Amino acid sequence: VADRLSEFGLIAKYFVPLATHQGALSLSDDAAVLQEEAERDLIVTADALTAGVHFLPDDPPDLIASKALRVNLSDLAAKGAEPAGYLLALALPHSIDDAWLTEFARGLAGDQKEFGISLLGGDTTATPGPLTIAITALGHVPRSAMIRRSGAKPGDSVFVSGTVGDAGAGLAIRQGRRCEGADAAFLVARYRQPTPRLNLGLALRGVASASLDVSDGLIADLGHIAETSGVRIVVEANAIPRSPALCRFDPDVVRAATAGDDYEIAFTASRPMPSNLPANPNVTRIGHVEPGQGVVLIDGHGREIAVDKAGFAHF
Amino acid sequence: VADRLSEFGLIAKYFVPLATHQGALSLSDDAAVLQEEAERDLIVTADALTAGVHFLPDDPPDLIASKALRVNLSDLAAKGAEPAGYLLALALPHSIDDAWLTEFARGLAGDQKEFGISLLGGDTTATPGPLTIAITALGHVPRSAMIRRSGAKPGDSVFVSGTVGDAGAGLAIRQGRRCEGADAAFLVARYRQPTPRLNLGLALRGVASASLDVSDGLIADLGHIAETSGVRIVVEANAIPRSPALCRFDPDVVRAATAGDDYEIAFTASRPMPSNLPANPNVTRIGHVEPGQGVVLIDGHGREIAVDKAGFAHF
Repeated sequence: VADRLSEFGLIAKYFVPLATHQGALSLSDDAAVLQEEAERDLIVTADALTAGVHFLPDDPPDLIASKALRVNLSDLAAKGAEPAGYLLALALPHSIDDAWLTEFARGLAGDQKEFGISLLGGDTTATPGPLTIAITALGHVPRSAMIRRSGAKPGDSVFVSGTVGDAGAGLAIRQGRRCEGADAAFLVARYRQPTPRLNLGLALRGVASASLDVSDGLIADLGHIAETSGVRIVVEANAIPRSPALCRFDPDVVRAATAGDDYEIAFTASRPMPSNLPANPNVTRIGHVEPGQGVVLIDGHGREIAVDKAGFAHF
Repeated sequence: VADRLSEFGLIAKYFVPLATHQGALSLSDDAAVLQEEAERDLIVTADALTAGVHFLPDDPPDLIASKALRVNLSDLAAKGAEPAGYLLALALPHSIDDAWLTEFARGLAGDQKEFGISLLGGDTTATPGPLTIAITALGHVPRSAMIRRSGAKPGDSVFVSGTVGDAGAGLAIRQGRRCEGADAAFLVARYRQPTPRLNLGLALRGVASASLDVSDGLIADLGHIAETSGVRIVVEANAIPRSPALCRFDPDVVRAATAGDDYEIAFTASRPMPSNLPANPNVTRIGHVEPGQGVVLIDGHGREIAVDKAGFAHF
């Protein structure tokens, strides 16, 4: 790429076709422009992925692109926001070639169509280091409707969408742990390409008292809700939803509850089970909120299960 | 840093104090929230800087931070936008220590105060590669008031703010070219810490027919206006404003007109000189717009001066 395409050529070839929003101005200007609306809030979030840290350099480029976008859409989902668009800052090592970029752009195009969003802008630079993808995602909620982390109250129930621990198992398999066939394919796919729970997020507006997406691990992330809400969260280990594939691969519930990268939504609500949630993903009640602080995992007899490592830490 | 601070500890120590906007939620949530307004547009831009490409790894950390922020504010300025806040995605090599981060955060804090903005969110990761700073900046204009690149018309005059070529000379000095005393200090400072022309940008709303900031080089950037506007731009070499320090260091006007990193504003307007511009920075008329395409640089006799390299290219 270094020898064949200028920065502008690269943008024209791969990224201008992704700038479908009128306000992206076909990436031909210094900035994008979006009309604001009365009685609406802008929700904005940024997440960066680095090769070797957040994905494996030999992961398929379309899935790398998709994951980078989806982890940001997952944040919007957890806030009850409707996604509008994103900006992409890409630092490319010299090893990246046309074939790679073609697949990378194809991955973004597929997700743009699936989630109804557009590339709004960004920046492409060369780097002597690993591939880095920094995305800022923008979305909207009606005024004051963002679901925060800070609203959990004693007496609330605790829920999580989908299944937990699959992505961590998928990473372990990619790193050499033995698993084959359909189970391996399922678990690796859960690691490589999370599903942002956008429809669930919309349904949780006015329903969830607190919400976030599970990126660092279920226990660690519920810890963020406990801390910002000033409450204690009790999680029943037996209630944590796990996929059949995960149970066959690794029956350890603590590992499932502390593995990262699931991008499910964990939330609290005052009702034992909110009504009018979408049929997909499944939502499971996994515990309750008490006065106090921190997160505890309990077994079927109400005894606390020791958790050494509450979640993934980069440093 | 790797051994002493978690990602959360690092955010709490260095970045939460920068999240002064209420909607940043003290960086304790998945996203920031900003109230929208009727009859207003959101302007959004992203620029990333990589050590060794956009700044030198041993540049002072507070100035690295300031430059990363200011190149984004410069884009907002060129669009006539009032800055609101920014998101910061930081990829930190393991060599970065507390002293470095303290200075880096101090640089951001100073600029936040100077330009009235807040950190709204972001992401901090470790990288085996060079330091990378990806910033997304948000600003506002009244509905439809963004100054685009595409509005230049034949008969318009062409202007640039401040002086051109200083930053390129500053980089050459940092890379070993001989220059001493006050001239060297001035030129290096122009490279290390650009001045976003925000007041000028506000004054150009409804006045400039097209505008952008000069980051790749005056001729290259005017080429973007010529291309998106479908016009030809004629620049008079003798009119290009250059600082006394630059003229002493390097009298070559072509190098000044093709050096990057100045972050001045180049714009077109229908009047020979717009009135009611701020006193600072100085604005100079440097040419005019014709039917046709491309950019030409002419001497005092109207003869075209050959320009080999129109501006900086990363690839």
